[in-house]
Amino acid sequence: MSLRTLKETAVARVAVIGAAGYSGGEFARLALDHPGIALEALVVRSRESEAARDVASALPGVDGRAVAVPLLEVEELKAKLAQGDVDTIVAALPHGTWKRLLEDSAWLAGAARVIDLSSDHRDGSAGYVYGLPEAFREEIAAAERVANPGCYPTAALLALAPLARSGLIGDAVIDAKSGVSGAGREPSAATHFISADENMTPYKVERHRHTPEIEQELAALGATLPITFTPHLVPLAQGELVSAYVTPAIELSEGDLAGLYHDAYEGEPWVEVKLGPPGVLEVRETNYCRVSVHRDDRTGRVLVFSAIDNLWKGAASQAVQNLNLMFGRDESEGLT
Amino acid sequence: MSLRTLKETAVARVAVIGAAGYSGGEFARLALDHPGIALEALVVRSRESEAARDVASALPGVDGRAVAVPLLEVEELKAKLAQGDVDTIVAALPHGTWKRLLEDSAWLAGAARVIDLSSDHRDGSAGYVYGLPEAFREEIAAAERVANPGCYPTAALLALAPLARSGLIGDAVIDAKSGVSGAGREPSAATHFISADENMTPYKVERHRHTPEIEQELAALGATLPITFTPHLVPLAQGELVSAYVTPAIELSEGDLAGLYHDAYEGEPWVEVKLGPPGVLEVRETNYCRVSVHRDDRTGRVLVFSAIDNLWKGAASQAVQNLNLMFGRDESEGLT
Amino acid sequence: MSLRTLKETAVARVAVIGAAGYSGGEFARLALDHPGIALEALVVRSRESEAARDVASALPGVDGRAVAVPLLEVEELKAKLAQGDVDTIVAALPHGTWKRLLEDSAWLAGAARVIDLSSDHRDGSAGYVYGLPEAFREEIAAAERVANPGCYPTAALLALAPLARSGLIGDAVIDAKSGVSGAGREPSAATHFISADENMTPYKVERHRHTPEIEQELAALGATLPITFTPHLVPLAQGELVSAYVTPAIELSEGDLAGLYHDAYEGEPWVEVKLGPPGVLEVRETNYCRVSVHRDDRTGRVLVFSAIDNLWKGAASQAVQNLNLMFGRDESEGLT
Amino acid sequence: MSLRTLKETAVARVAVIGAAGYSGGEFARLALDHPGIALEALVVRSRESEAARDVASALPGVDGRAVAVPLLEVEELKAKLAQGDVDTIVAALPHGTWKRLLEDSAWLAGAARVIDLSSDHRDGSAGYVYGLPEAFREEIAAAERVANPGCYPTAALLALAPLARSGLIGDAVIDAKSGVSGAGREPSAATHFISADENMTPYKVERHRHTPEIEQELAALGATLPITFTPHLVPLAQGELVSAYVTPAIELSEGDLAGLYHDAYEGEPWVEVKLGPPGVLEVRETNYCRVSVHRDDRTGRVLVFSAIDNLWKGAASQAVQNLNLMFGRDESEGLT
Repeated sequence: MSLRTLKETAVARVAVIGAAGYSGGEFARLALDHPGIALEALVVRSRESEAARDVASALPGVDGRAVAVPLLEVEELKAKLAQGDVDTIVAALPHGTWKRLLEDSAWLAGAARVIDLSSDHRDGSAGYVYGLPEAFREEIAAAERVANPGCYPTAALLALAPLARSGLIGDAVIDAKSGVSGAGREPSAATHFISADENMTPYKVERHRHTPEIEQELAALGATLPITFTPHLVPLAQGELVSAYVTPAIELSEGDLAGLYHDAYEGEPWVEVKLGPPGVLEVRETNYCRVSVHRDDRTGRVLVFSAIDNLWKGAASQAVQNLNLMFGRDESEGLT
Repeated sequence: MSLRTLKETAVARVAVIGAAGYSGGEFARLALDHPGIALEALVVRSRESEAARDVASALPGVDGRAVAVPLLEVEELKAKLAQGDVDTIVAALPHGTWKRLLEDSAWLAGAARVIDLSSDHRDGSAGYVYGLPEAFREEIAAAERVANPGCYPTAALLALAPLARSGLIGDAVIDAKSGVSGAGREPSAATHFISADENMTPYKVERHRHTPEIEQELAALGATLPITFTPHLVPLAQGELVSAYVTPAIELSEGDLAGLYHDAYEGEPWVEVKLGPPGVLEVRETNYCRVSVHRDDRTGRVLVFSAIDNLWKGAASQAVQNLNLMFGRDESEGLT
Repeated sequence: MSLRTLKETAVARVAVIGAAGYSGGEFARLALDHPGIALEALVVRSRESEAARDVASALPGVDGRAVAVPLLEVEELKAKLAQGDVDTIVAALPHGTWKRLLEDSAWLAGAARVIDLSSDHRDGSAGYVYGLPEAFREEIAAAERVANPGCYPTAALLALAPLARSGLIGDAVIDAKSGVSGAGREPSAATHFISADENMTPYKVERHRHTPEIEQELAALGATLPITFTPHLVPLAQGELVSAYVTPAIELSEGDLAGLYHDAYEGEPWVEVKLGPPGVLEVRETNYCRVSVHRDDRTGRVLVFSAIDNLWKGAASQAVQNLNLMFGRDESEGLT
Repeated sequence: MSLRTLKETAVARVAVIGAAGYSGGEFARLALDHPGIALEALVVRSRESEAARDVASALPGVDGRAVAVPLLEVEELKAKLAQGDVDTIVAALPHGTWKRLLEDSAWLAGAARVIDLSSDHRDGSAGYVYGLPEAFREEIAAAERVANPGCYPTAALLALAPLARSGLIGDAVIDAKSGVSGAGREPSAATHFISADENMTPYKVERHRHTPEIEQELAALGATLPITFTPHLVPLAQGELVSAYVTPAIELSEGDLAGLYHDAYEGEPWVEVKLGPPGVLEVRETNYCRVSVHRDDRTGRVLVFSAIDNLWKGAASQAVQNLNLMFGRDESEGLT
């Protein structure tokens, strides 16, 4: 395939839309050090905004030093896309915003490749492929549109995928805990230091947008069932822990479980199966997901714990991993 | 009953053994302001120890100001007990230590009343009554030996009691999260700021001492079944959250659940049923347990969240509540 | 004096304006347990606002339990003041707001007594007395209008007063560190958990409103000189530490200093002189200021450290202390 | 010089002694990704110790994955040094330990190059050069023994060097604040989460080992004078802030100061002069020192703030910078 051949030597010419958010900023930092990404533009709502100043001060090189990536507003991308100076868009916008932006500025659809970090196309609409490499590597490599998974679905699906694929999930409860960056950069009562510090609380009980996303992808893996999912806010900056409680479809021994998870993740560069339960600090600012699986002898229930950095494997570094796949590069490039 | 009559006017003459630990220290602070408690002695392993210095500096009034509670070693209690200067022992020692101490210093058994904050007698051995007032108020009021519940069992049992009493629990998963004070004062790798800060991790998976304690008391309430219980360490000082996932024995509506919990806790001074899920900061340094109950429409599962301060309702202030009951005083005295 | 006589038995009938802020809320909590304060009203901008909901949920007793303090808007106070149902106003508003409110609602001036927690009248305008009891106890007791000191000035002045009164300050640098609650409840980029957590930074360098306040009150104590004052934001909720570096006017020995500070604060109920430097956790949620004084032998410089809780001795509990003085009550009532 | 020529192409064959400590571990992680460092050995006291396990689990690649750096005890280094498999020792040991180790195992002195992260040779004894590249770049490049500066001296000297070199310091107060990792990995009462969280406190008042180190190096830069230095412990993991208050020898304007600092640090790859005061989060996990300089118009005093990561520029990454210089490599290699 000529596209494939082209990709092999290609450098992605990327514009990050929403560079002032946590995920967009983290992606931009990773892109600056990535040999296969030319960061062509950081796009913000308004160049006069506080957000624009934040981008400049947050990115090494952008604040007047060696590298100077231009800060643009959306309309200013038009010419760059038309001329082919930008061929890939990484959209790191609040949910709903990318879809609306596409309606307002239809020319954005002309980008050769798009990775959308919002939930707007995670249902597969508009031809988007679900960007969880450990589940859909081939599809991502062939895709021009990728919907980057949410942070909770990433941790939950990597915890459950080996069981789901083997048809072993009878029932599942997912208790998830996230650091405060998961709530985004917009200041609010909930993200005020005084509200979050020394506190922890369940939120969006029964109605988090990630529940249907998790169910949909579990179904794609072979496990069609309703699950219970509850997120909790915890006083730390970055990190996400999923504690999954699975009633197995058949009796499973510790040995069965260890074998199942080792086979599932052997060779996976970014999933590590551990003996003891993982802590989120172990994976901070990495693309790793660390997983442990246990059998509760009292009840026969299966316990799976998975830890990721919600801004990395749960967002920005997973987007890099997807971009690597889409461009036919080494999947781990720029991530080590 | 003459004992009852005596109790009505009695002031407890209390010695706190283990006053240098978090729970013991917290109890002592509460006792100093309690009109019905005369704090007669703070007992530490050695008066020359660092722990002794900590007690002195931690307690207002003890460091050379108005009130001066004597700091004693265990042997020095003997005379005080014999003379009746001390009639109540509050033992706030590491698990196993109180039992051993009773063997070494059998005269300690002469105390009229004992509240043991360790797990040593929570199985009801040696005539100890399980000190959860919301479940066993009458028994505590009549008891001379009370085993104060663990912090996790307190939060878990208050979350599940209304369902357990009505025979409505088909199956239960308890995901619990605790601040670092739950790990005790002894410095360790796990409680080092650098290990705990910005981290969260499950611990003692499948083998926490609190699992049998919770199962035993659920059975006492009417629900004999094995449960899955997993504690997690979270980067905050004081606070404990239980997220309980219950498969109900019969279909239950939101209305059924609301009614059940309101009826169960109406009139309870220290349990509040809320509409939204509680955060631990709301109950910090209080004897309150805040509970919310929800129905997950996707699965029919019942979700119950309960928040307490692990050092207060989970230890020291619950001990005060028990002491009030044992002495026939107003259950809430010294707690508001 | 008849006013005095009246005061001796009087209960303050208090309305807290700005009850949704951190200081106002803390004052209200203290007032609820104070035998000499009848909390007649919690005043918020709009009863329909989120702030109003917060007040209700933050105050024990206000959320539908035993005590029910009415939530009012400012205009609704008019009748209460006119009828004498409220005789004391505690204004805990953002700086500038109380002054503006007095212009808009002149009838507020009819309150018998006012304690203003903002900086609006700390310059002594409109007959306000500076409410630092350790410096101006007599004046406060005789006052009907008291300007409660800022948190930084409270800690700084208590650190420097003994030297200032004796004319011993040649020059002074004040390096102050505050927890995030000092920045107020309004969500902002600076108070977002992600900005504040794991960070510390100087702010308002050279231009903090507290610098002239400190200089003015040092002058009132006898030390007329310009000082250098720099506040820093530190990732904790409540607590303030002042590190003062004083070049003494004459050579002072360790013994001189110890004597000076002990004499100055002997008998003061809420200032404790310690040998070692204080930590803010020691005074959390107390009205205490802990101070230590040292001589740097290398340079002859005097080092003074003082720790307070910025929301308590730095705001709400100091307001209670002032109210006690104004009403001729025991200065420490409701604070232990 | 032949050594120079050799160096230009040489890869450092490094053994890290004290790899289980925070600084040693951080250096090892940086070394693994450094093209000019072959990490030949991680040395711990005992391979059976908990520390050894920590090293293995903390270092990606060391826990059974691609890279396998051998974990050795000190005696096992002897053969490797003799055979030239190791030519550079990075000693990241508690203060006093490296000196004692040299006495016990004199053969360690045979290493071609040593970088010592402890304070043992910061006085220049045994031929050690003080490893602050911004002050002593040439000397470091020619040295075979380098004493890596302490974290506080690094931040303090970079704050004061431009003034010191120009003879402009009349007097200086240094108020320094550090995250808890500065206290080392050994669990203690002070580093227990419950002691450090929500607290801040001055420590080692008047007697920190870094005071003479700062004075000595200020003298080397041209400013011989006693200074006042006070460190404070602050509840965050990594980060150090120095607030320096300088009475200038002559009157200096804002313009003078801006010019002085820009000239001093122009071209320096790892020192950035900013307009506003820096926060430590900006430089976390980087080799950057960010500095701002201000004139306090009230007093004529000069204020300088500097922020570093105590484990990076204050220890491990500065050791990499020094190693780069010693081996004639690009000073910034492996640090971007």
